[in-house]
Amino acid sequence: MAEVIQRSVIEGRRFDLIGIGNAIVDVIAHADDGFLADNGLNKGTMTLIDAEQAEHLYHLMGAGIESSGGSAANTLAGLAALGGRGAFIGKVRNDQLGGIFRHDISALGVAFDSPPATAGPPTARCLVFVTADAQRTMQTFLGVSAELGPDDIDEEVIAASAVTYLEGYLWDPPAAKAAFQKAASIAHGHGNMVALTLSDPFCVDRHRIDFLDLVEGHIDILFANEAEIMSLYQVDDFDSALQHVTGHCQVAALTRSEKGAVIVSGDEVHVIDAVPVARVVDTTGAGDLFAAGFLYGLTQGRDLHDCGRLGVICAGEVIGHYGARPEADLVQLAAPVLV
Amino acid sequence: MAEVIQRSVIEGRRFDLIGIGNAIVDVIAHADDGFLADNGLNKGTMTLIDAEQAEHLYHLMGAGIESSGGSAANTLAGLAALGGRGAFIGKVRNDQLGGIFRHDISALGVAFDSPPATAGPPTARCLVFVTADAQRTMQTFLGVSAELGPDDIDEEVIAASAVTYLEGYLWDPPAAKAAFQKAASIAHGHGNMVALTLSDPFCVDRHRIDFLDLVEGHIDILFANEAEIMSLYQVDDFDSALQHVTGHCQVAALTRSEKGAVIVSGDEVHVIDAVPVARVVDTTGAGDLFAAGFLYGLTQGRDLHDCGRLGVICAGEVIGHYGARPEADLVQLAAPVLV
Repeated sequence: MAEVIQRSVIEGRRFDLIGIGNAIVDVIAHADDGFLADNGLNKGTMTLIDAEQAEHLYHLMGAGIESSGGSAANTLAGLAALGGRGAFIGKVRNDQLGGIFRHDISALGVAFDSPPATAGPPTARCLVFVTADAQRTMQTFLGVSAELGPDDIDEEVIAASAVTYLEGYLWDPPAAKAAFQKAASIAHGHGNMVALTLSDPFCVDRHRIDFLDLVEGHIDILFANEAEIMSLYQVDDFDSALQHVTGHCQVAALTRSEKGAVIVSGDEVHVIDAVPVARVVDTTGAGDLFAAGFLYGLTQGRDLHDCGRLGVICAGEVIGHYGARPEADLVQLAAPVLV
Repeated sequence: MAEVIQRSVIEGRRFDLIGIGNAIVDVIAHADDGFLADNGLNKGTMTLIDAEQAEHLYHLMGAGIESSGGSAANTLAGLAALGGRGAFIGKVRNDQLGGIFRHDISALGVAFDSPPATAGPPTARCLVFVTADAQRTMQTFLGVSAELGPDDIDEEVIAASAVTYLEGYLWDPPAAKAAFQKAASIAHGHGNMVALTLSDPFCVDRHRIDFLDLVEGHIDILFANEAEIMSLYQVDDFDSALQHVTGHCQVAALTRSEKGAVIVSGDEVHVIDAVPVARVVDTTGAGDLFAAGFLYGLTQGRDLHDCGRLGVICAGEVIGHYGARPEADLVQLAAPVLV
């Protein structure tokens, strides 16, 4: 197959990947199905909540652990753990959770130069309810993260990144959507690639027409899970969605939980099996880490089969423990593919 | 054997246990031995650091997770998870980490009525460096927690608690030491018991004379690990320390990591084996959770053998994952002892 990204683009860039997304600290606790039902929470999805709802739900929530999160930020954390060169753009406040977010992503070697807001709402937090079936149900208070706008997009950094990665969640706050469009336009203007993850089936529902247009003409690499791609095309089975997406963007990487992933590029289709996991504990971050492995492979010039394998290896690591950032040594786990 | 706590005392009290200690949020990250050496950190111990040192070390630290901690608070969390009735006294600020600490201990059903400070230093944080051998090395910035003083001791709550549990770490800040003495005196004045954990061998070094006096005359139940009890009596082997402690307080519960625990009370000695653990990940909280299980048993009127078994079961749970608070269902794990 042809290289997806030309070697000259990767070698001429300071960063392999820049992610733009919500800068969030996750608060993770167990919950049972009754709790989700009592509080009207849709299992496996992400819902935006306001400060008051966040306060109310946190009060009802069990004791938790906190871990830096945010979809695109998790992907950058995974890429950096593999040895990739990454940068991140997102908005935090100058508060304790903002300091934790900045520390964690910087400690992984990801460039994060967005200055903290000195006024306004606090740093975003996502209440993650993990049920015994390892599903996560997320309630996000975006806080200051929703104030991300076009002025936060640094043209020089986007130009210096082989791939610009955008999370679909950014389509929710209006100013972030404008930031998203500005970044995509800069990236393409410099001959770089643009990747998008659809983020969540309800997010797709909210913005279907926009997302269909993006996939059709503005995105080079699409990430979606089964529920998201079926929601995008409003079809009832995975194969129908697969037929719809074929030919509509340069690369589509479709993840299917324990069924693995399907990668489509032109008339090339790869079916990648999932990595067996001893015990699935918390699926938070599975899609984000799949994207990390996949994009690391891509920016290392690997073929799509290897990119898919790297994706399932990274996703398999993150679902074996609580939290959406890798804990084990991804380089070691990925070694069978990378040698 | 005679009951350690008379049933009338337990039944007449609103709480089985009140803990007084530092209110801390742990920040937990991997580190290697080279990092400890480069930064002059003593593996397996706790060191107090100031705000500037905390800032510096946090900057060098890897990406982490946050989890409510504090030695006595961990013990109360464990006791509550077993179904015990607990209360906690400690000082947080009205900041984000303070809110997390309060949420977590309250969510477990522990009464925590200490109002947050509205000025002064921030909520305490403990930087926990976990090495591949699962040892933890702790660097604590006490922040506002060091301002705990006698005025924070609520006589009514101490009177209503069958056992008052104090962490040796409280001996470090002068006002906390006075709070400690006030609480012990109230507890005894109401016919309740006083328990102390020695906390850390260096903490014992700092306060040996005081601790020897406490053990001799003011404490009913002593918790110590092997290093701490050997430090207290300045001896080189466990058995010598055991001979020293015998007869010097009503109950001594001495923990020995993978060798289990030895319980001494008068001329009664119990040697309890550790629970096998599939993979020891992070030993943070092992002693705290041993005390939780032990004190739960004691306040349920169990004999010392069962108290010891409950201790090793709880300690075995907490060392199998990151963080010092239990994740699994302790009631289920303890069922073989409790039936």
